[in-house]
Amino acid sequence: MKPIVITVGEPAGIGPDCIIRAYLDCSEAFERCLIVAPSRWLLQRAEQIQADVRILEFTCLAEAYEALRLAPTDALYCWYPMHAQGAGIVTAAKPSEQTAVEVVGCIEAAAKACLAGEATALVTGPIEKAVLRRTGFDFPGHTEFLDHLARVSKATAAEKSNFVMMLASEGLRVALLTTHMALRDVADALSVAETLKCISIVDLDLRQRFGIAKPRLALCGLNPHAGEQGHFGREEIDILSPAAEQAQAAGIDVTGPMPADTLFSAAVRQHFDAIVCCYHDQALIPLKTLSFGEAVNVTLGLPFIRTSVDHGTALDRVGADDVSYSSLLAAVAMARQMSAASVVD
Amino acid sequence: MKPIVITVGEPAGIGPDCIIRAYLDCSEAFERCLIVAPSRWLLQRAEQIQADVRILEFTCLAEAYEALRLAPTDALYCWYPMHAQGAGIVTAAKPSEQTAVEVVGCIEAAAKACLAGEATALVTGPIEKAVLRRTGFDFPGHTEFLDHLARVSKATAAEKSNFVMMLASEGLRVALLTTHMALRDVADALSVAETLKCISIVDLDLRQRFGIAKPRLALCGLNPHAGEQGHFGREEIDILSPAAEQAQAAGIDVTGPMPADTLFSAAVRQHFDAIVCCYHDQALIPLKTLSFGEAVNVTLGLPFIRTSVDHGTALDRVGADDVSYSSLLAAVAMARQMSAASVVD
Repeated sequence: MKPIVITVGEPAGIGPDCIIRAYLDCSEAFERCLIVAPSRWLLQRAEQIQADVRILEFTCLAEAYEALRLAPTDALYCWYPMHAQGAGIVTAAKPSEQTAVEVVGCIEAAAKACLAGEATALVTGPIEKAVLRRTGFDFPGHTEFLDHLARVSKATAAEKSNFVMMLASEGLRVALLTTHMALRDVADALSVAETLKCISIVDLDLRQRFGIAKPRLALCGLNPHAGEQGHFGREEIDILSPAAEQAQAAGIDVTGPMPADTLFSAAVRQHFDAIVCCYHDQALIPLKTLSFGEAVNVTLGLPFIRTSVDHGTALDRVGADDVSYSSLLAAVAMARQMSAASVVD
Repeated sequence: MKPIVITVGEPAGIGPDCIIRAYLDCSEAFERCLIVAPSRWLLQRAEQIQADVRILEFTCLAEAYEALRLAPTDALYCWYPMHAQGAGIVTAAKPSEQTAVEVVGCIEAAAKACLAGEATALVTGPIEKAVLRRTGFDFPGHTEFLDHLARVSKATAAEKSNFVMMLASEGLRVALLTTHMALRDVADALSVAETLKCISIVDLDLRQRFGIAKPRLALCGLNPHAGEQGHFGREEIDILSPAAEQAQAAGIDVTGPMPADTLFSAAVRQHFDAIVCCYHDQALIPLKTLSFGEAVNVTLGLPFIRTSVDHGTALDRVGADDVSYSSLLAAVAMARQMSAASVVD
């Protein structure tokens, strides 16, 4: 088994707190995990929060992993391949453009290790997008950057993006047709082709990454009561039904479009391995309403496994005694579970 | 205490099944309840489903109620004031225009009894709108008809509608700014004035009908993350925030607009007595996801208490052995609870 690589994200944010505190309380959760970061990011925060933790840094991934395997819970193992680059000063709670090269470089190195088959999964910590953008990072977020790296590596950069955002909790998995856009723009953003692509990616990844032999999917309607035969909106008739029918014709077990309000009730949701939603809140409201432990953000459709924490850099929480690391542990556990179930590693 | 009046709705639908079966299994639930219907609607269905139930009919409400008080669980008591009108034949599962006059007449009589202070609350069974409309019933639904009757009775027919749809379950109350419309039309349907009116009605009715001295309300954002300061949609800035501020200035305890996805999580929703939602699924998804027992549909803003079942006429279920009457019982229980808590009767 190859290692799981974890990026810290913004070193001035709570990323380092989460890793240090999670390790102190639950070192076995980091089995097979390498932190892709300069060790000083963690050492400096550990000192600030008076945490007694051993942190080792390696330039070579294979060496880092060998050390980790020999003494898994003796230390936090950092892999930092870019020792020649940057040495930006980190000031807790004050993200700086000085460290942007390192932040992006660590994500890139981690993703490339996954693409090269040297790592089995990527878990990402929270970045400070605005700071990175000011230094020329030209992506709306993490996921688009990873998708870009994946497509460059396959020499298919001209292709459209193929990733899908999924959130998974113990009792519910939701995938999103659209993400961060105004609600008034959602209806026009839907298309048969994108809906079909999303359904296909979810189906494929549930088989390949989640070990579900025959995934049962549901597709949410956009409108109340799924439009009631076109009485309130035609997107079900014009877009969602054709997409579902094409997916079914391709052998995918997808039901819908179904009225979204009843679809998430206990009696109905249990029949599906994932529910494909039209917009952000249609997916996130039921997920967070149920709050089965921690939800993990999973990116489907990439050529490697990627999970991420579901929080931001929380600058107002940096260094606090009670920073919660449960989302990090859940993301690591999900990555581990997916890499164990995965048939494409 | 005045009686609670219950309308059967469409006599060819499951309305009669629900009343008969609920009474047989739980006659005490009908304490103080009069069914506004010709007794033959119930007698005929009782015969079809071989239910042994005593059903009495009275023309005069006061006489019916006196009989009910003397022997509350001896029979189902029908009040049918329109004996001279109609005698449409009822064929189970086949709604007919022949009974439309009686269906509408019963609703009207029941509402007028509430408006006149002769009844304390109205519980409505499911109607078959399409059939009623073909006979000249010119309202989108039940609620608009009741609102019309209320405004006519107050000689303020020119006023705009003032009702709000609320759904209430054991752990969550949601009120709706918009109801059955296409999702693409929701953003343009919102306004400061209507949002403020809705918040005010919810606040007033929670005080007056639910016995909550200081209601704590939350207002949902429309867009993901409540728009993130206008990044995805401006309705929070232009409409929802001004409405919330005006409501606060008027002394109403309302928080928001808040991101809808986290608002319904257990940790947050418990702080609010009701959550005002921008659109149908934003309210109905969390309510049905939680499925705390049965949700009851409550109409706020009418000059009387009105609850209704949350199902339709279910023509395919008419006469079935296992017709569920839990929604009817929940609607009756809620009407009873509201009339006990009510300070405006």
